[in-house]
Amino acid sequence: MSKDQIRLVDTDIHERVQYEDILEYLDEPFKHYIKNCHWVQEKHMPYTQPSVAGVDRADTVVPDGRLPGTDLAFMQEQLLDDLDHEYGVLTSALDPSPSSMHGWYEMATALASAYNDWQINNWLEKDDRLYGSVHINAHDRDGAIKEIERVGSHPKMVQVLLPIDDIMWGDPFYHPIFEACEKHNLMIGMHHNEPPVYYGKWPRYFIEWHTLISTAHMKIVTNMIFNGVFDKFPNLGLMMIEGGYTWIPHLMWKMDQQYRDLRHEVPWLKRKPSQIFKDQIRVTTQPAEELTKHEFESLVEQMGSDEILCFSTDYPHWDYDSPTRALPNMDPDLKRKIFADNAKAFYPKLP
Amino acid sequence: MSKDQIRLVDTDIHERVQYEDILEYLDEPFKHYIKNCHWVQEKHMPYTQPSVAGVDRADTVVPDGRLPGTDLAFMQEQLLDDLDHEYGVLTSALDPSPSSMHGWYEMATALASAYNDWQINNWLEKDDRLYGSVHINAHDRDGAIKEIERVGSHPKMVQVLLPIDDIMWGDPFYHPIFEACEKHNLMIGMHHNEPPVYYGKWPRYFIEWHTLISTAHMKIVTNMIFNGVFDKFPNLGLMMIEGGYTWIPHLMWKMDQQYRDLRHEVPWLKRKPSQIFKDQIRVTTQPAEELTKHEFESLVEQMGSDEILCFSTDYPHWDYDSPTRALPNMDPDLKRKIFADNAKAFYPKLP
Repeated sequence: MSKDQIRLVDTDIHERVQYEDILEYLDEPFKHYIKNCHWVQEKHMPYTQPSVAGVDRADTVVPDGRLPGTDLAFMQEQLLDDLDHEYGVLTSALDPSPSSMHGWYEMATALASAYNDWQINNWLEKDDRLYGSVHINAHDRDGAIKEIERVGSHPKMVQVLLPIDDIMWGDPFYHPIFEACEKHNLMIGMHHNEPPVYYGKWPRYFIEWHTLISTAHMKIVTNMIFNGVFDKFPNLGLMMIEGGYTWIPHLMWKMDQQYRDLRHEVPWLKRKPSQIFKDQIRVTTQPAEELTKHEFESLVEQMGSDEILCFSTDYPHWDYDSPTRALPNMDPDLKRKIFADNAKAFYPKLP
Repeated sequence: MSKDQIRLVDTDIHERVQYEDILEYLDEPFKHYIKNCHWVQEKHMPYTQPSVAGVDRADTVVPDGRLPGTDLAFMQEQLLDDLDHEYGVLTSALDPSPSSMHGWYEMATALASAYNDWQINNWLEKDDRLYGSVHINAHDRDGAIKEIERVGSHPKMVQVLLPIDDIMWGDPFYHPIFEACEKHNLMIGMHHNEPPVYYGKWPRYFIEWHTLISTAHMKIVTNMIFNGVFDKFPNLGLMMIEGGYTWIPHLMWKMDQQYRDLRHEVPWLKRKPSQIFKDQIRVTTQPAEELTKHEFESLVEQMGSDEILCFSTDYPHWDYDSPTRALPNMDPDLKRKIFADNAKAFYPKLP
């Protein structure tokens, strides 16, 4: 391999569990509800699916007909080997997604544990390149902490995955979760489930909802920064996953302006919000807005840091980003940072 | 006046009514409820006020003690004469604000009419520089159309003011309002009232809420563009008021990207969203994020148009922007556009 070659660290890969695969990791009565009562998680989104394979690329359906992301061998062939990944961080598919359940929280907590065991056995311990996310039930704080204590010290678990939803994670009520993360050298990964972006309602079309996902990311970053999470937990890092990346300069400028005017309200903030962002927040690029080289360079300059962006494919989703096509050509040093070094520097457990 | 001098067209000035001033324009029983039952509009916001004069600059309190924005002579002295305004567009203060009332819609409709008459008599017909906004009750579509028919042809009414809230103005249900606007050469002005930006809830601090106002602006622009308002009403223009301006490139890039992927869902869109934005949407600058000259120029370049931004002071609010200090130095041609010509080109009724 030439010295200039960059091997990809992919910060967003969606492996998917099927209900039948998770049964062996579930205790009763939860197993019974799935196996005999045919329970499946509720779905909210009213829209048509974006592609002929639903939310996935049509060519990622496993050749035997199973759903995209369910088969390690096929993912190795189609993604990890084909693109020569150095590392990939698993972020799970949505169904079942314990963190997005509203109600029946014992089931959600049990599902999170089962999911983590299934993930460790079938993915993390089967491929050296793959690292994982600790799943928790977002509505059971103390259960979440127990789960972090149970699996968080696994050497291949790099982050705790929290949903971007109507939960205000900056609230001190949730800070014990961040304390547990620091204890286990885990970062926070945040990914939206199905946030009702229009004041708790669905907008009229999928294209509106999908456009406004970035506003959901802006909300939680704002909430966590101004509520002092990053001042209280200086070793904590936050990876914002799958919201695109062009919103960053706007939010930095806006927060800094508000900080100048209103910091009397949040006296625990000792750094400008943009500095907190640069120090402790990273952003995966997908779904990458399509910029010219000049636009991309001016945007990174506006961020004031080339250490924030981390490339992600979002495999196997319908709007997958190709590492050779999604971003414009760029300076080799910047490219090495975005495609590999920024993520390596961010996750303490990555080699 | 030298040829190079630019006289300001100020696109956001808040005049304020007091309950006692509006009584003469109200019919019974509404007058009775205010005068004898001491009705005042409900308030929602739980936060401390940002400044010692509440939401206003301390020095804008009228010398006789009345609230900021209530007195034309004092506003002339402190704002219009002092800065030598060419024109100013009135956008009202929030209390009472018929468009933000939830419930008792007959009262809200009556208040909107009374407010318009008070505004015409006491402001628009008393100062040649001042232009006005038609107020309507956002929850009474047919009443709103009647009110536009009643006062919309006044030569100094330049726009209909709609609240940025949880209403999806792109919904075809509201399109008759835009039809009435086109008929009277009125643009739409959109200003947030107190949108519950965190999924219908208040975030924990005012600084969070005020930061996230820009996401409320992004939501309604997204909703109106993708629901085809600007394709259906090609003469309609939308002025986004008081959300700052650095969000524009992000939203353009994001919407264009989504349009490339998902336009099958909105086949009525014949132009790229960024093109619709450039053709029919304008944005007032206040509260201006504080950018360097280089950052400002790169941002305007990213917008792909120097015709979008329109300067506003937001007098007499606490975060008022001074025309000599809020924006960085810029090229004189660009400055003339932002401080005067863009607004003149946008509002058909401005000379």
